[in-house]
Amino acid sequence: MEFKISKEFIQEIEGLIAEKNEREILRRLEDIHFADIAELMNELDGEDAGYLFRIIESEISSEILLELDEEVREKILNNLSAKEIAEELDEMDTDDAVDIIAELSEEMKDEVISELEDFEHAKDIVELLRYDEDTAGGLMAKEYIQVNENWNVLTCIQEIRKQAENVSRVHSIYVVDDEDRLKGRLSLKDLITSSTTTQVKEIYIPKVDFVKVDTEDTEVARIMQKYDLEAIPVVDETGRLVGRITIDDIVDVIKDEADRDYQMAAGISLDVEADDSIWELTKARLPWLLLALIGSFIAVNISEGFSDAMDKYQTLFFFTPLVAAMAGNVGVQSSAIVVQGLANNSLSGSLWKRLGKEMLLALLNSTVLAVLLLLATHFIMGTSYEISSTIVLALVTVMILASLIGTFIPIMLDKNGIDPAIATGPFITTSNDIFGILIYFTIAKMILGF
Amino acid sequence: MEFKISKEFIQEIEGLIAEKNEREILRRLEDIHFADIAELMNELDGEDAGYLFRIIESEISSEILLELDEEVREKILNNLSAKEIAEELDEMDTDDAVDIIAELSEEMKDEVISELEDFEHAKDIVELLRYDEDTAGGLMAKEYIQVNENWNVLTCIQEIRKQAENVSRVHSIYVVDDEDRLKGRLSLKDLITSSTTTQVKEIYIPKVDFVKVDTEDTEVARIMQKYDLEAIPVVDETGRLVGRITIDDIVDVIKDEADRDYQMAAGISLDVEADDSIWELTKARLPWLLLALIGSFIAVNISEGFSDAMDKYQTLFFFTPLVAAMAGNVGVQSSAIVVQGLANNSLSGSLWKRLGKEMLLALLNSTVLAVLLLLATHFIMGTSYEISSTIVLALVTVMILASLIGTFIPIMLDKNGIDPAIATGPFITTSNDIFGILIYFTIAKMILGF
Repeated sequence: MEFKISKEFIQEIEGLIAEKNEREILRRLEDIHFADIAELMNELDGEDAGYLFRIIESEISSEILLELDEEVREKILNNLSAKEIAEELDEMDTDDAVDIIAELSEEMKDEVISELEDFEHAKDIVELLRYDEDTAGGLMAKEYIQVNENWNVLTCIQEIRKQAENVSRVHSIYVVDDEDRLKGRLSLKDLITSSTTTQVKEIYIPKVDFVKVDTEDTEVARIMQKYDLEAIPVVDETGRLVGRITIDDIVDVIKDEADRDYQMAAGISLDVEADDSIWELTKARLPWLLLALIGSFIAVNISEGFSDAMDKYQTLFFFTPLVAAMAGNVGVQSSAIVVQGLANNSLSGSLWKRLGKEMLLALLNSTVLAVLLLLATHFIMGTSYEISSTIVLALVTVMILASLIGTFIPIMLDKNGIDPAIATGPFITTSNDIFGILIYFTIAKMILGF
Repeated sequence: MEFKISKEFIQEIEGLIAEKNEREILRRLEDIHFADIAELMNELDGEDAGYLFRIIESEISSEILLELDEEVREKILNNLSAKEIAEELDEMDTDDAVDIIAELSEEMKDEVISELEDFEHAKDIVELLRYDEDTAGGLMAKEYIQVNENWNVLTCIQEIRKQAENVSRVHSIYVVDDEDRLKGRLSLKDLITSSTTTQVKEIYIPKVDFVKVDTEDTEVARIMQKYDLEAIPVVDETGRLVGRITIDDIVDVIKDEADRDYQMAAGISLDVEADDSIWELTKARLPWLLLALIGSFIAVNISEGFSDAMDKYQTLFFFTPLVAAMAGNVGVQSSAIVVQGLANNSLSGSLWKRLGKEMLLALLNSTVLAVLLLLATHFIMGTSYEISSTIVLALVTVMILASLIGTFIPIMLDKNGIDPAIATGPFITTSNDIFGILIYFTIAKMILGF
């Protein structure tokens, strides 16, 4: 099974588009998955992609639209009328339709909604648009199967057949009372193995995991992962069933969260991709660089404050980048482990115990490095033992403190409801730079007495 | 709905364990999800956890075993006989059983397998143990539903009822020929909406996505994400259906991959958690720190090579940590974006185009920072314009080169089949340290002529 679109294939299609050979293009794309067609369109130039999009039937083009890169999608949507966009949305599940609408301009939004043909579908979409993107309400879809506890299996199956037309994946069948309040679930397996006259009341499973519309998306992801769920129903404030979230949406949430943490650790403050514009990338990268520059500038001024010692102890100044770098490295290591532990909910034990462990770890690591550095400085650079030992003693102190700060700050931020991921990368590196150099020269001054 | 185990509840259970009040403990745990019981056991001390594990019935205890933290599980397994472990495995799906067996010692493995009661189950487990952990074969389970293309719907439903007893989640029904070769699939929805006399041949969907047993796990994850699949069948070299992978296993693969990349970027070389032992954490952290130390030591020696300039141009030496830090920061930003783009398969366009863009971006960012630094050095530190402009000119050059290196190295590694994630964090920071300082002093020497 071939999952990738080859360069040759792209060129072939480009050739056919140039000839406007609609029939041949459709024949070539017949057996190709819509996700692959989307990948193909991402590689084409805007006009070619637009042409291709128009000749593909709407059942498939709506699927393609969802898979496209954002900027390609934007171009295509810009060339469609409100009516044409509405036709695409009519083919989509409500949650996907809402995602597309969210990308439109305000006027276009209203126009598109008024053009939707299926009134029920339009009503569902308008309801979903009300919820915050980052909550269960923003993730859920209105496509799910619900049965009344008072029905029997035969009625159930008839109803399910009807409802299933709109639901591409049946995970479980939710059971509600006459007020639509969630009571439990019926698994498909149970349903096909029960006799047709059985009452739903008798066979449904009254235990069912659910989330509320205002539960945060990352919390929904954690719950679904922990309880190994492939779908979870969503209820409103009064316990009425209002939607369903499936695992594929959660995969995106998990991936996005991990990507965001990774970018934060690398000093990228907005959610950007390599293919974004230079302007977008600058907005995401310059703020951190500026912060790092200010921090480093402070560190420079601190070392300048010790310039009296320069005549006598030149070597000390050669070592400032090393001390700053090691403070930064050890701080990033410590904070990364804590941030990941917090994200995975796997951090146990008290703060003091954790700091104690981190201190021991830093002491162990820095002692090994200190011995090596002591030998290297003395034998390779010919530095006096007095200065060498000053440098390594300062290094050990700085590394221990850097790792404590790297552990402490993310935990504190998390306790105060702030995303601990901001405390990684340049932030930790820079703050450790400053106090690393300060401590280094202070210790040197105490020992060498300048 | 309460998803968390409270501190009070843990203490209550600890009290009941001390009293050995088995009946009351079981009553308290009755309505609690196994994933929550596992979380509770992670918090208990080893002996209490072992006691709790023994009094819980095996249907639930086997589920708990899978959810426990690795070190808690290890303790519990160490206290069980081969026969007891086999009893737990008999309750598990084959893929989960294999994961547990993989954690046992070699002799224990064989003993446990010989104690398995269900021969079919044992045979499946032994087969799965043969596959590499990081491939589709290592991820798949033998629990799936398959029907022969020559059966009719009635036979199908009877067979499915039988097979479904061992399958906790029915995603799709796979259709095979008489040689067990995968032909297509039947969706449950299609099945319940067809008449009982219809032949499978007539209604099955001949298009089905699949992977081979030796496909890499990250590739399986990418395929399932791209095609939005909740389960994918696995075939062997001859096209025979041999297993099935479900999305929940893929969620773990995606999470693990993201976590690993994040740790690499933070200079942690092994897959560790905050709660691992100091020895494990040292093994994961010390190698990078050592590499960083060596790199920084080289940088120190480079700056020492320019010590002649120290009398006249002291200020230059105060700025080495700043230049090194900015080279590191910009390098990490560039490499992180590339690594993420590679991981998400979203990197398009040629290498040269990418390097050109990165250069423009670095030029833009560094010019903004250079102007600010020029003003700050001159007005705050009173540095002469000659030296200030030398420093900022060097900074711009270093930042541009650092970002090119940060872009180039991961792409090159990836092209040569090496995980590009190793080129992030300390690796980039350190190599940028070295050549950053080298370029800095070289430019300074050229301009100032020392």
